[in-house]
Amino acid sequence: MNAITSAPAAQTVHVPLGERAYDILIGPGLIARAGAEIASRLKGRKAAIITDENVAPLYLDALVASLDAAGIASAAVVLPAGEKTKSFEHLMTACDKVLEARVERNGCVIALGGGVIGDLSGFAAGIVRRGVRFVQVPTSLLAQVDSSVGGKTGINSRHGKNLIGVFHQPDLVLADTDVLNSLSEREFRAGYAEVAKYGLIDKPDFFAWLEANWKAVFTGGAARIEAIATSCQAKADVVVADERENGQRALLNLGHTFGHALEAATAYDSRRLVHGEGVSIGMVLAHEFSARMNLASPDDARRVERHLQAVGLPTRMAEIPGELPPAEVLMDAIAQDKKVKGGKLTFILTRGIGQSFVADDVPASEVISFLREKHP
Amino acid sequence: MNAITSAPAAQTVHVPLGERAYDILIGPGLIARAGAEIASRLKGRKAAIITDENVAPLYLDALVASLDAAGIASAAVVLPAGEKTKSFEHLMTACDKVLEARVERNGCVIALGGGVIGDLSGFAAGIVRRGVRFVQVPTSLLAQVDSSVGGKTGINSRHGKNLIGVFHQPDLVLADTDVLNSLSEREFRAGYAEVAKYGLIDKPDFFAWLEANWKAVFTGGAARIEAIATSCQAKADVVVADERENGQRALLNLGHTFGHALEAATAYDSRRLVHGEGVSIGMVLAHEFSARMNLASPDDARRVERHLQAVGLPTRMAEIPGELPPAEVLMDAIAQDKKVKGGKLTFILTRGIGQSFVADDVPASEVISFLREKHP
Ligand SMILES: NC(=O)c1ccc[n+]([C@@H]2O[C@H](COP(=O)([O-])OP(=O)(O)OC[C@H]3O[C@@H](n4cnc5c(N)ncnc54)[C@H](O)[C@@H]3O)[C@@H](O)[C@H]2O)c1
Ligand SMILES: NC(=O)c1ccc[n+]([C@@H]2O[C@H](COP(=O)([O-])OP(=O)(O)OC[C@H]3O[C@@H](n4cnc5c(N)ncnc54)[C@H](O)[C@@H]3O)[C@@H](O)[C@H]2O)c1
Ligand SMILES: [Zn+2]
Ligand SMILES: [Zn+2]
Repeated sequence: MNAITSAPAAQTVHVPLGERAYDILIGPGLIARAGAEIASRLKGRKAAIITDENVAPLYLDALVASLDAAGIASAAVVLPAGEKTKSFEHLMTACDKVLEARVERNGCVIALGGGVIGDLSGFAAGIVRRGVRFVQVPTSLLAQVDSSVGGKTGINSRHGKNLIGVFHQPDLVLADTDVLNSLSEREFRAGYAEVAKYGLIDKPDFFAWLEANWKAVFTGGAARIEAIATSCQAKADVVVADERENGQRALLNLGHTFGHALEAATAYDSRRLVHGEGVSIGMVLAHEFSARMNLASPDDARRVERHLQAVGLPTRMAEIPGELPPAEVLMDAIAQDKKVKGGKLTFILTRGIGQSFVADDVPASEVISFLREKHP
Repeated sequence: MNAITSAPAAQTVHVPLGERAYDILIGPGLIARAGAEIASRLKGRKAAIITDENVAPLYLDALVASLDAAGIASAAVVLPAGEKTKSFEHLMTACDKVLEARVERNGCVIALGGGVIGDLSGFAAGIVRRGVRFVQVPTSLLAQVDSSVGGKTGINSRHGKNLIGVFHQPDLVLADTDVLNSLSEREFRAGYAEVAKYGLIDKPDFFAWLEANWKAVFTGGAARIEAIATSCQAKADVVVADERENGQRALLNLGHTFGHALEAATAYDSRRLVHGEGVSIGMVLAHEFSARMNLASPDDARRVERHLQAVGLPTRMAEIPGELPPAEVLMDAIAQDKKVKGGKLTFILTRGIGQSFVADDVPASEVISFLREKHP
């Protein structure tokens, strides 16, 4: 909490979306500065903070104090932590709180938490009074590098994850890199899988930099800020090219087709697998599958695996605790996720590190025999 | 249900909102043509119909048959009729049905009903998969001339009406003028108040035409189509000028400030007052208040009242069955609705028939003494 005189400087990533343009600030001590940053950008002086039971005891008081100091009155609602919070029931609670706090169209909703809180709060901000301002204060690494940027918000349905929501861009993202110190090692690593993903999509130099500097990213300081800012910039570039997800935003799903199938196969039980771990295994599988299709060198797959292993992420299906269903069941999950057209699947494949592309003619038969090989 | 050879021709009002542009078709027999009209405009061949218990027995089979004939598979959900249906609970039911029907982003939600069903269905269409296509088949006069046009969707909260929703424009509006024959006389009249409103806002010739032709509008046929088309065009013009309701869309609230206060004062009990009746009384009050402020001639107020009385609408607070709270309580409701700034209110006033304007400096003290006079 003490300002260190040699604290590394914050970085800013600008997301140029016309009248929906906004800044992402990345650096230490941003929660303490939140009030001032918000007051200088938004007219309203009323805010509703939405957070969860893990994050509230750690950071809510500091955020409220910072808002107070800037003349912004706030009310907070503390929801249970975890994926189940992305439900209609909690959405209703959140909307109710925003209205109770008398937030008008120029007032704001502030999400203080990981991706769960960010997705739910952004949805609430998008629908109360048909849209109020929205500020993200992402506190997990995954939220800082992925979910807080891009405007996709939503909740889950019994028909699937994230099926109900709106596009509602934030007006400001404050990624306080200090708060990541209280995140569990496992959650930090899971978020790191998404950081590595940006290198693997189209930034081979960034991937090489991560191989050399990942320890410093885990420790904190300038390298962490650098890694998060590069990730936010990468995500922002894709979002600007395809705000409403009609085309190339699909590249962000590298590793996610296999990953989602593994999440489904483990019934979203976070004791067995969290999202980033599924993505880690999925990215290795995507590289191996690309090699098998003679698109990329097997050396690249090995290099990806080596790095993810080094940081402590799982890279093999066999590392998932408990039994996995047979390859055919995993294949069903993939087919459900993707829509099979005439036996062909859309998949993110690669020609090598940093050379991913959208392939829309992947034979389902190749995928199933690959899965059988990997998971006999 | 039989096609009459001399059936009056349908009219089309185009709403030019760029990539969100759409047509409103107004005429007889449109439910029978719905499948063909939708199929020629939208790519998807899956639809979820949302309707209510009053409308379903009358028109659901015909709509489904028409979709079937056009190769569009549909599933329907029948919700309770009435304002209470605009809730989170029913929104969840509706979203669930849309997902169950496997409606993708190019498939559509079809609202078959009055404004309640339209507002709820449009909201569901706006959030399932972050937006699927939306077709309005409005069956009440109010829905045909007002709520189905403009893209405002939403539900109620315990903090107030319509406080939660999205802007989501329809892709097509099919206003079948035949279905209004099964509407109760009272609901038809209530919708008619909104028709008259468009004349009073800025179409004095239309108001004069209504004075001469209202009986034909109530009977059906070409005059009804003409009145609905003129109303849709009027609403479309305002929406195009101000899609997200930042300014001049406020003119549509002529008569609504007083009207809403009366609705609140009668606890939204439709046995005592329905929305259009409140608007009818409110429009007379707005004209009388404008005369009192020396903005308009008292003759205009009398002329407005005479016409609304002729069609059978209430025009005086005393006509509302049961006790009304004192003027001070009505004033509180107005102040809550409007935001009072330094004792001044924003109000839609008029300089005469068809000459309404937004006044943002109406002294609250004048309103209260006017109300005391009218409701001693
Ligand atoms: N909107 C998007 O574009 C997008 C993109 C990717 C993921 N997501 C969504 O994000 C969600 C996953 O996000 P997540 O991994 O942040 O999950 P999460 O929000 O559940 O956070 C993970 C855990 O860490 C805790 N936590 C968060 N910050 C902490 C901190 N600083 N200190 C201590 N504990 C902390 C949380 O309470 C929670 O228990 C999923 O629902 C996913 O669908 C959305
Ligand atoms: N979105 C907007 O811009 C907008 C504008 C104005 C009003 N509204 C909303 O519209 C709603 C009021 O609309 P409404 O007056 O249509 O109410 P409604 O939907 O409740 O319909 C009125 C009654 O008529 C019945 N009905 C409808 N069509 C019928 C038919 N053809 N035959 C027999 N019965 C029929 C309904 O079942 C209901 O009982 C309110 O919730 C209001 O907030 C929205
Ligand atoms: Zn991910
Ligand atoms: Zn109205």
